[in-house]
Amino acid sequence: MNNFQFYNPTRILFGEGQIASVADNIPQGSRVLFAYGGGSIHKNGVYDQVRKSLEQFEFFEFSGIEVNPSFVTLMEATSLVQRENIDFILAVGGGSVVDGAKFIAAASVYEGDAWNIMTKPNQVKQALPLGCVLTLPATGSESNGNSVVTRYETHEKLGFFSPLVFPRFAVLDPTTTLTLPQRQVSNGVVDAFVHVIEQYLTYPVNAPIQDGFSESLLKTLISEGPKALANPNDITVRSNIMWSATLALNGLISSGVPQDWATHMIGHELTALHGVDHAVSLAIILPPLLQEMTEEKHAKLLQYATNVWNIDSGDDASKIALAIEKTRDFFELMQIKTRLSDYQIGKHDIPEILGQLEKHNMMQLGERGQVTLDRTQKILLNAL
Amino acid sequence: MNNFQFYNPTRILFGEGQIASVADNIPQGSRVLFAYGGGSIHKNGVYDQVRKSLEQFEFFEFSGIEVNPSFVTLMEATSLVQRENIDFILAVGGGSVVDGAKFIAAASVYEGDAWNIMTKPNQVKQALPLGCVLTLPATGSESNGNSVVTRYETHEKLGFFSPLVFPRFAVLDPTTTLTLPQRQVSNGVVDAFVHVIEQYLTYPVNAPIQDGFSESLLKTLISEGPKALANPNDITVRSNIMWSATLALNGLISSGVPQDWATHMIGHELTALHGVDHAVSLAIILPPLLQEMTEEKHAKLLQYATNVWNIDSGDDASKIALAIEKTRDFFELMQIKTRLSDYQIGKHDIPEILGQLEKHNMMQLGERGQVTLDRTQKILLNAL
Repeated sequence: MNNFQFYNPTRILFGEGQIASVADNIPQGSRVLFAYGGGSIHKNGVYDQVRKSLEQFEFFEFSGIEVNPSFVTLMEATSLVQRENIDFILAVGGGSVVDGAKFIAAASVYEGDAWNIMTKPNQVKQALPLGCVLTLPATGSESNGNSVVTRYETHEKLGFFSPLVFPRFAVLDPTTTLTLPQRQVSNGVVDAFVHVIEQYLTYPVNAPIQDGFSESLLKTLISEGPKALANPNDITVRSNIMWSATLALNGLISSGVPQDWATHMIGHELTALHGVDHAVSLAIILPPLLQEMTEEKHAKLLQYATNVWNIDSGDDASKIALAIEKTRDFFELMQIKTRLSDYQIGKHDIPEILGQLEKHNMMQLGERGQVTLDRTQKILLNAL
Repeated sequence: MNNFQFYNPTRILFGEGQIASVADNIPQGSRVLFAYGGGSIHKNGVYDQVRKSLEQFEFFEFSGIEVNPSFVTLMEATSLVQRENIDFILAVGGGSVVDGAKFIAAASVYEGDAWNIMTKPNQVKQALPLGCVLTLPATGSESNGNSVVTRYETHEKLGFFSPLVFPRFAVLDPTTTLTLPQRQVSNGVVDAFVHVIEQYLTYPVNAPIQDGFSESLLKTLISEGPKALANPNDITVRSNIMWSATLALNGLISSGVPQDWATHMIGHELTALHGVDHAVSLAIILPPLLQEMTEEKHAKLLQYATNVWNIDSGDDASKIALAIEKTRDFFELMQIKTRLSDYQIGKHDIPEILGQLEKHNMMQLGERGQVTLDRTQKILLNAL
């Protein structure tokens, strides 16, 4: 395996009833920003539970953090934090709210134009502490230092990383996910699945622990994802999905192994240009990308076929083809259509997508920089 | 799965050459205790590398921390820390040195008789920061909050846990393990293996991620352990063993699942009374314990047989029997003899072992408290 650093200080508070422990994990006397998105937390009771757990604190609500959180919205929250001398951010919601809270935590104590945090390297020298109550398992943002923010007026969707914005704690209460709409369940499972794939389906570096962990997460998502759609009230299923999504992107399975992320980079342009959900963009791109990169990913694709899909007959090429087919079938079983044409995106749209990738300097993607624009074009053609 | 908290703030610095990064991970201006055991770090070059990385600090050496670190020795180090106003502890060695450093970190700022840390609950309210350079993969102490200390004059070997003594960082450079004697390699692999078993072979709680992670670690140790004996210079093998041992006891695989630890508790008495190595005591006790608890552990034993040992024919009972046999064979392959009689411990010694367990209130061991003294007696008889 390769050299690595692994650091993840987020305290995970997992299980039913854990929202009550929020109070024990925020420093006494804190002035708290209670940040959330839309109205879903009012419907599922989370809002009331959080308010109760914040009783002993002075807190300020900020709602309206949108999916793909917007810079403008987050700067409003930042102003509130500065005006009210808030010193702890509590994010309640899915990955977008947590991402947004990380930006607020950094921007509130940043001197200068806060958009620099997204555009220039290593801008975050300090940040307010934050914690989160997760209600949508998908992005892994609850226990990592990553955040993605969108500036809609300029069509820019950019990310930053800082160890200073790891949530201090993350409440993962799977009962909060029972009322999620099917679309969000599907997206969450597929998002987590592709996160694992991006860190697993590269080339072998003799790292059986990381491979085994990734395979466990993939098999769990394959097994539990469809159950969550069929039996929405099964809390055990929800628990396993929630823990999978966190472990899929907390830095553990990527430690010491190569990473790909080409599917994400191409998918981001689909979302930016055509508004398809993030997970949908991944479900569209991944199967043709794996096809295109079969030679480069040969060894790991075979391992994936055997260990994840239990394919043990046929020659190597047919095993790999079947594994890719099963991957697509899994996304479809999760009720996500996997063709560009399903979303009214056609051949004539491809040049613009490639243009955006070029503009964003995404011409050498993947674990070895081999996903060039030419190959991305083939991938997109095969995604039609 | 069960509710859980997971928290592990140790920064892992993994790979060849990482000792040099010690300097970046100790606060500037620290006065450092450089604590180690015997002479092995002089022979393998680690001593020189650490001294070089400490150049910019004022540091004080303390050597002689023994296997199963002694209270008396650690109190000498504690006096040095207090006398010299040392404010950072760097442990360099195996689990014993790291355990010792944790005690020193807590004892140095403890008011009153420091042995209270071991005998009374929740004594540690503060601790000096510590880091470690691990040279022997086995105990997992490099990234947890556990420490075991022995008071030889009273034959007491006790443990404490505090989140305040998690190492701030752990350097895991597998090249430092290349010169380990065979006995320590064998012990380390078996110790890590049994750590995983204690958190895995209990009863099912529908936790496929935790089970899958545990199985990955077990399979890695089964595959890589014998290779480390056969090809001592294979750095990839050493890397995989080192990362397995850390993940075996960093709190991850135990999150949300039951735990056993009966083998450890019985084994501790064997070590205390007869001086057998810790890992040896586990290798002696585990196979007959699994036999004795076959009914209670039936479901997980079957899963272990299938997923870890790939046993897919025969009835359930014979699958389980074969899995236990293979477990013993693995220990023997690691050159650890697995019978009490191999260590001149006989039937007549059993009452004393049981007496010690009773004295230490170990009459209801295991994940459900079903390992009574009667059953421990049977286990010991079957271990002869």
